[in-house]
Parts: sequence; structure tokens; C-alpha cells
Amino acid sequence: MKLVTYRADIEAAASLGVLVGDLVVDVATLGEACGEPLPGSMLDLIDAGQPGLWAVQDCLDRVDGRFPIHSATALANVTLLAPIPRPRKNIFGIGLNYLDHVAESARALDTNKDLPKQPVIFSKPPTSVIGPDQPIEHNARITRQLDWEVELAVIIGTRARRVTTGAALSHVFGYSVMIDVSARDNRRAGQWIYSKGQDSFAPFGPVIVTADEIPDPQVLDLWLTVNGVEKQRSNTAKMLFKVNELIADISQGITLEPGDIIASGTPEGVGAGRDPQEWLWPGDVVTACVEGIGTLRHPVVNATPD
Amino acid sequence: MKLVTYRADIEAAASLGVLVGDLVVDVATLGEACGEPLPGSMLDLIDAGQPGLWAVQDCLDRVDGRFPIHSATALANVTLLAPIPRPRKNIFGIGLNYLDHVAESARALDTNKDLPKQPVIFSKPPTSVIGPDQPIEHNARITRQLDWEVELAVIIGTRARRVTTGAALSHVFGYSVMIDVSARDNRRAGQWIYSKGQDSFAPFGPVIVTADEIPDPQVLDLWLTVNGVEKQRSNTAKMLFKVNELIADISQGITLEPGDIIASGTPEGVGAGRDPQEWLWPGDVVTACVEGIGTLRHPVVNATPD
Repeated sequence: MKLVTYRADIEAAASLGVLVGDLVVDVATLGEACGEPLPGSMLDLIDAGQPGLWAVQDCLDRVDGRFPIHSATALANVTLLAPIPRPRKNIFGIGLNYLDHVAESARALDTNKDLPKQPVIFSKPPTSVIGPDQPIEHNARITRQLDWEVELAVIIGTRARRVTTGAALSHVFGYSVMIDVSARDNRRAGQWIYSKGQDSFAPFGPVIVTADEIPDPQVLDLWLTVNGVEKQRSNTAKMLFKVNELIADISQGITLEPGDIIASGTPEGVGAGRDPQEWLWPGDVVTACVEGIGTLRHPVVNATPD
Repeated sequence: MKLVTYRADIEAAASLGVLVGDLVVDVATLGEACGEPLPGSMLDLIDAGQPGLWAVQDCLDRVDGRFPIHSATALANVTLLAPIPRPRKNIFGIGLNYLDHVAESARALDTNKDLPKQPVIFSKPPTSVIGPDQPIEHNARITRQLDWEVELAVIIGTRARRVTTGAALSHVFGYSVMIDVSARDNRRAGQWIYSKGQDSFAPFGPVIVTADEIPDPQVLDLWLTVNGVEKQRSNTAKMLFKVNELIADISQGITLEPGDIIASGTPEGVGAGRDPQEWLWPGDVVTACVEGIGTLRHPVVNATPD
């Protein structure tokens, strides 16, 4: 299933929807029509576990395309929010997780040129999340090195403490796209949270594709454009630490919980690594796509204080 | 006021309490007795803002020490939890924020010997929080360099985006104590979240003292002992970036929200900085205190997987 969080109109509350072709089907309304209560938010659905997904699928099967009135809206007529508009903790980000990005970072960002022996983890606060089409804020008072990074986002479905690589993928709820926006000149004593965790620095969506539809997350093309010009193109096959290894590794020390998000790292082609270097400025438009999931599109706007 | 989150007995739900002498007065029960609904959790009280605190104080004044039945319990008879058992996002940690700790870190931990020009920020996930007396987990499979750091914790009361140093303290709800437990050998490419963010690495409490009782957070002694031997002793006067500067700085890029926690850095005397170096091992007991707030006491236990 492709799941979304959306507003049917500007005054509506956020709802959980499932994409069926070009229609957004409201999950809670669908449940009422089926006589089966269904979750009303993405986090509620994640908390409901596999039975929750089965219940949604069961209702979809029973209505068989004849959606009850008010339960389906054309995708073009709704506003998509981030699939999880308000994560329950900071997003786990992974640095230096594609071979050629390690090399460009060593050249441009003073990171180690040797491949990391263990995943390099940082975090992005819930306040950094924005949904599809929302603006990335450029604050010239703080940064003149705003950069892009397209990433496969992994959404955890069930609690994972000290799990093995063999069991790790069974803890995944689904996959999405995230842009790890980074103000390169805002690193502090090497720490990345301030450079990567500012408001609007985590564009997220447009959908979560459930894990059953992506049995192997390591075969997905991903790419990013700025003003229509392709800047990054790679495949998740090139990750140094695969999704199952990231989950197993983090879970040795930090318990992963339902709804947790891991942004699994970016391939080469970031602005800092280019010659000459390129940065994002107000007026630019960034698009980012992971194969089989969807495309994010975000304008960069001037958010410099007066 | 000194506020706690507690369980009246092992089967009870967590409740919000206010300390009156050696009594824990249940805030929700007090409210019922006063005919005024009062918040039942610390986050609800924080969200209620200044009117919430006034309402609690008003009820306390009205009962004037004659607490209704079932509303007051001896502190010795309750279990204190972390004041905010489940923060809504990662805790903001501040590194290298006391002069002599910058020096010992440069000697022992390869950090820069120059004073940081801006606050050094990292994060600790909500899963790292433990309450008073709960064990700090020692996993010998992962670390042989488990270290202590006593810190003043700052709890944000109201949303702060791009605030000035002059306005910053008006956004503080209160203050508490946190131990920033750190597995020094778990830093990765310099990032600290894995070394400081593991389960049980954020002992927090025992109370939150509301900001009105600590008009100046920069005059507080703080100290830490291991097995009764004093290892750290300093005063918050020695912070490089004061609490108001930390809030103003973070808020330029990252919006601070009600219930957010800032662990404001540790003074000299950590294990890594001693000669010879000292680390925490199962069987050790750590106590940490900030003047006027309270004392945390935590055993270190073996949590190595079989």
C-alpha cells in the first residue's frame, strides 16, 4: 500500500489516506463504511502493527473499488502533509553511507577519507520536518552553504532492541523519501545536528510505501534535481551499510520504536562536492525521488530575519 | 514549586505531583478537591503555561496545608520517575561548555583545545531517559569507556523561535539535573549521538524546580560522585555559553518547543580527563546534584547480552 497523511481541504484536520490509483481513500471513513474501526493517523496505524494493515487491506478488498461517498478524493484535490507530520523523536540520519559520497566529503568537508567502520549517526529534530511542496527556509544570516541530499527513509514498525541483521527488516513498516538539507557552514566542533536539524531541513514524503511492496530496499534508484538539472543519481545498492545493518547496529545501543525514521544516507553529487561548489538559494526548486516511492518538490525561500 | 512525576504504588499510573516538604501532593487530585481541573502530567502542565502554574499554586494556597484525603503521600513511599518520562523529541546536549572541561577534552578526547565560538550541540533520544535510582546500563560488548557528566537541565516552557538573549529566560519552565552518560569509545566520525544516546544514558530528575524559584541559573553549584568519591565540582557561573545564550542560539535555527530539554554541559572532572583515566563499571554508584534542585543516584549494572 501507498499511505499518505493529507488534508481534504484547508480547514480539514490531517487524515490518514491510502492511495488507490489517483484517488486518496480516507482510511477512517473507509473503516466506518466497513463497520470496522480503522486508524485515523499514520502513527496510529503503525502502532496497530500488521493487524492494522490487514484490516485496511480487508476493507479495501470488500469495497472493491466502490468507495463510499466522502471516502475518496482525487489526489490532485488534497494537500499532502509529511507522512508522519510530527515524529515522536528526532530522525536518525546516517552520514557517509555511499562510497563516492565519502570521497567527495573528504575533499570538500574535512571528513575522513577512509570508509567508516560503523554507521555514522546524527539526528534531525521533529521540527525540521516539512511535507511535500512546503518551502525550504534559507536564512542568509546563518548560512551561505545550503546543500541538498536525497535519501531513502526507513520507517520502523515494531520495537527493535539488539536485533540481528537477519531479523532487522521484519521491524520495518515502510519506506519513504527524505531530503537531508544541510547548512555546511553550521557544523560545530564537527557535530551535525545544527547544520542538518534546522526548521524545514527535513522534507519528507510524499508517501510511505509499506514494506511488503519493497521486499529488497537495496535495489532502488534515487536521484535529485535542482532547477531541473540532475545533481545526484545513484542506487541504494551502493549503500555501505545496508538498511538491515543500520537497524541492527543502532538497536544494539538505542532501542528503535514504532514510527522512528532512519534517513539512510545520500550518494555523491551534493553541492559541497562539486567543482566549483554549488549551494541552494531562494528561488531554487529541488526535486528528489526514490524509485517506486515518489517525488518530493520543494522551493527554497528567503527566511532571513529583517 | 518543586514538581515531580511519580507512581503512588507499583500498579499506579504515572502522576504529576508537587513537593510540599516531605509530601508529594497529587496535582490532579488536589484540583478535584478545589473544584478546579488541574493537569495530570508534567507535559500537560507545561502546555498549560503560566496560568497552569498559577492554578496549582492557587489550589495549594486554598487548602493551606490541609490536603484532602488521598492527595498527599510521603515522598519516601512513592517511586519518582523522570520528571518528563518521555520527552517529545531528543534532548539537546551541549558539549564543551565549561572552560576546564574544554581543556581536559582536548587532552583526552581529541577535541579542539580552542574555546568553541558557538555552542556545540548534539542530541540524546527520549529512549535514553531514566528516572531516579534506575540503573545505568553497562554493555561490555559495546563500551569499555563509560563516563559520567553532571549537568544543569533546562526545561523549555514556551515556543522559542529566533529569540534574543534578553527574552530567552522567559521561555524557561524550570530546571532539573541530568547525567550525560557517555561511552567515549562509541563516537563515530566525531558524531556523539551514539556515544551519548544509548538506552539509560540520560538519568533525569529528581524534580523540576520552576523558573520563578531560580531567577539566576548561573549561580548554582553542581557536583558528582562515584562510589562516594567526589569527581566533579563546579558552578554554573563557569559556563562558556549561559542558559539564555544557549536558548537564543539554538532558536535561531531550530524552534524550541514546550517540554524541550537542554542539558547545558558539564564541568571538568570526567573520567576521560583523569590521569589515569577512570570509567564506570557494573557495581558502581553515581550521584549527581545541582544546588537547590536535588540529587540523582544511579547504580551501574551489567547489561551485556549473553
